[in-house]
Amino acid sequence: MVIHSSSNSYKIILGEQIRFALSDFLSKDYSSVFVITDEKVAALYLADIIGNFSSKKVYESIIPHGEQSKSIESFYKLQTEAITNGLDRNSLIIALGGGVVGDLAGFIAATFMRGIDYIQIPTTILAHDSSVGGKVAINHELGKNLIGSFYPPVAVIYDIDTLKSLGEREVRSGYAEIVKEALIADESMFNTLLMTNICSVSNEQLQEHLAYGINVKANIVEADEKESGIRKYLNLGHTLAHALESELGYGALTHGEAVAIGLLFSLHVSEDVFQHPLPFQELYTWLSDNGYPTSLHAWNVDSLISKMKSDKKTVNKKIQMVLLKEIGKPTTKEIDDLSMKAYLVSFIRKLVNQ
Amino acid sequence: MVIHSSSNSYKIILGEQIRFALSDFLSKDYSSVFVITDEKVAALYLADIIGNFSSKKVYESIIPHGEQSKSIESFYKLQTEAITNGLDRNSLIIALGGGVVGDLAGFIAATFMRGIDYIQIPTTILAHDSSVGGKVAINHELGKNLIGSFYPPVAVIYDIDTLKSLGEREVRSGYAEIVKEALIADESMFNTLLMTNICSVSNEQLQEHLAYGINVKANIVEADEKESGIRKYLNLGHTLAHALESELGYGALTHGEAVAIGLLFSLHVSEDVFQHPLPFQELYTWLSDNGYPTSLHAWNVDSLISKMKSDKKTVNKKIQMVLLKEIGKPTTKEIDDLSMKAYLVSFIRKLVNQ
Repeated sequence: MVIHSSSNSYKIILGEQIRFALSDFLSKDYSSVFVITDEKVAALYLADIIGNFSSKKVYESIIPHGEQSKSIESFYKLQTEAITNGLDRNSLIIALGGGVVGDLAGFIAATFMRGIDYIQIPTTILAHDSSVGGKVAINHELGKNLIGSFYPPVAVIYDIDTLKSLGEREVRSGYAEIVKEALIADESMFNTLLMTNICSVSNEQLQEHLAYGINVKANIVEADEKESGIRKYLNLGHTLAHALESELGYGALTHGEAVAIGLLFSLHVSEDVFQHPLPFQELYTWLSDNGYPTSLHAWNVDSLISKMKSDKKTVNKKIQMVLLKEIGKPTTKEIDDLSMKAYLVSFIRKLVNQ
Repeated sequence: MVIHSSSNSYKIILGEQIRFALSDFLSKDYSSVFVITDEKVAALYLADIIGNFSSKKVYESIIPHGEQSKSIESFYKLQTEAITNGLDRNSLIIALGGGVVGDLAGFIAATFMRGIDYIQIPTTILAHDSSVGGKVAINHELGKNLIGSFYPPVAVIYDIDTLKSLGEREVRSGYAEIVKEALIADESMFNTLLMTNICSVSNEQLQEHLAYGINVKANIVEADEKESGIRKYLNLGHTLAHALESELGYGALTHGEAVAIGLLFSLHVSEDVFQHPLPFQELYTWLSDNGYPTSLHAWNVDSLISKMKSDKKTVNKKIQMVLLKEIGKPTTKEIDDLSMKAYLVSFIRKLVNQ
């Protein structure tokens, strides 16, 4: 698959064992390579990646696993390492890992000496979403992904063998974004997913679902790289999800778990706004059956609303939500604070009464 | 003058009193405005700028004057203010001030919510260079401008009346970049400048010199936005200048004073490399007559060389210098460490013997 962005075109390659053949996908002779990964992924795949570059200077940095690594402190520390390792404008950064590594390493690449090349080697299902489209960022303590760039990689190299090492919770987290992509694009895929038990999915099915998700994402990103229009639809479920992650502390829910709740909330609000039935109940049942957390502790509704306002879709301090007129027909709508409060209260009640 | 960048086109407007008529140059209805300026400029022109937006929410942030404000700490603090002021993707940032303000505010605009609009309102001569071309950055403690982006403004609005408040040292600093542009582009302009006493320059002359400098810069930047080729020539004199600024501590020399010494050094090396006489002596005399510091304290040559290697033109840890085959004919050349050391030693001797 090839993505055409405003600044370059880049390939997304899915395959087995391709982490051992990176040079097949690189078209430039880089002066040095800097692999950024986390402690969990390093133990499994770092040596495989480094093995590709026996004739080059290769540096590595291993960050702590988890969202807290997307901080300004990690950002500055990695910049320091890039400088002291002697990286230059002809160096390559490799983001080896999940979304956290991809977002952070991508933002380092975007800003080191005003931008150098990088590739994404995603090792989670969730990262199929973040590794495509060039969105890179770190978190601010007041909100997720608030500091970042649109900066496309030179390639996304997806070795699906690396997904075998994922735990159940990570599989779940990744599938939430595939469900989101189906809700945005295509009722039949949504129905297929609702028949899938994600804990016993085959390698073949997984590759098919991943390719589907990437395809939805790629088409949207090509049409609207800088999110001035339809790219916003990819935020379905994310207004509440980001607020929940920030409210509960990053890591209390996985990103996908938060998105799953956010998707239910989008359906809840959409049903009311468009007075049109949506498969809230079906999605709720599937999420429960597949082990997603759906009964949650007391939420502070006011605090959530204030957090939702630092969402990047917000305009003039009014929350803009992505809603569904029907499956495959997303749209955005401004929701005022009072309505939002009412929706959150009725949503919580609905979850409690399940 | 209109600059065409890969992502947008933007106008550069030079004129008198145009700081009172900003709306004439803005084509969008922004949700709010965030003016970033420094304490010196704020006292003179902040009220004038705010006066343009009586019907809008306008926020301001006043940073300390000087290079130390281009730090990661200032960067994060301004991001925090942007968030707490409720800026959104339809907000406008205004960089009101010299190069430090422009670089910092521009990098905030480049990275806040992955990029929002900003305009440059330069208030120094020096900033004619930095405000055009979309280079934005902050400093790393290990080197200048190492963290940044290519991110063009939506307009550069140059009210030349604001230049009347500049001190002699700032005029000098600005003219060094105009001299650089002449050396890159055009022998006759270089000769004209050498006949100019910059302390008694008329408003008319200044506007002409500024327009000339911007024009040289604009042509180069259009041809090579991301500095893969000829844009490097704009770094004439800067390899040593950046190292000197870092070595002596930012602020010990103004940027232009450091560039002036760097230009002399480029001529010194160029004469040797191309065995072709260049107006080293003429430039030296003009710089001295116009009050540039040319006799300097003891330099640590090894430390300078190590600093020169963190220059962004460095490839494979080899310093790349911009040299002149003749005036108007720049080129780049790799200089190995031993030669660089010899050049620095002979240059210092030459300066001492003047």
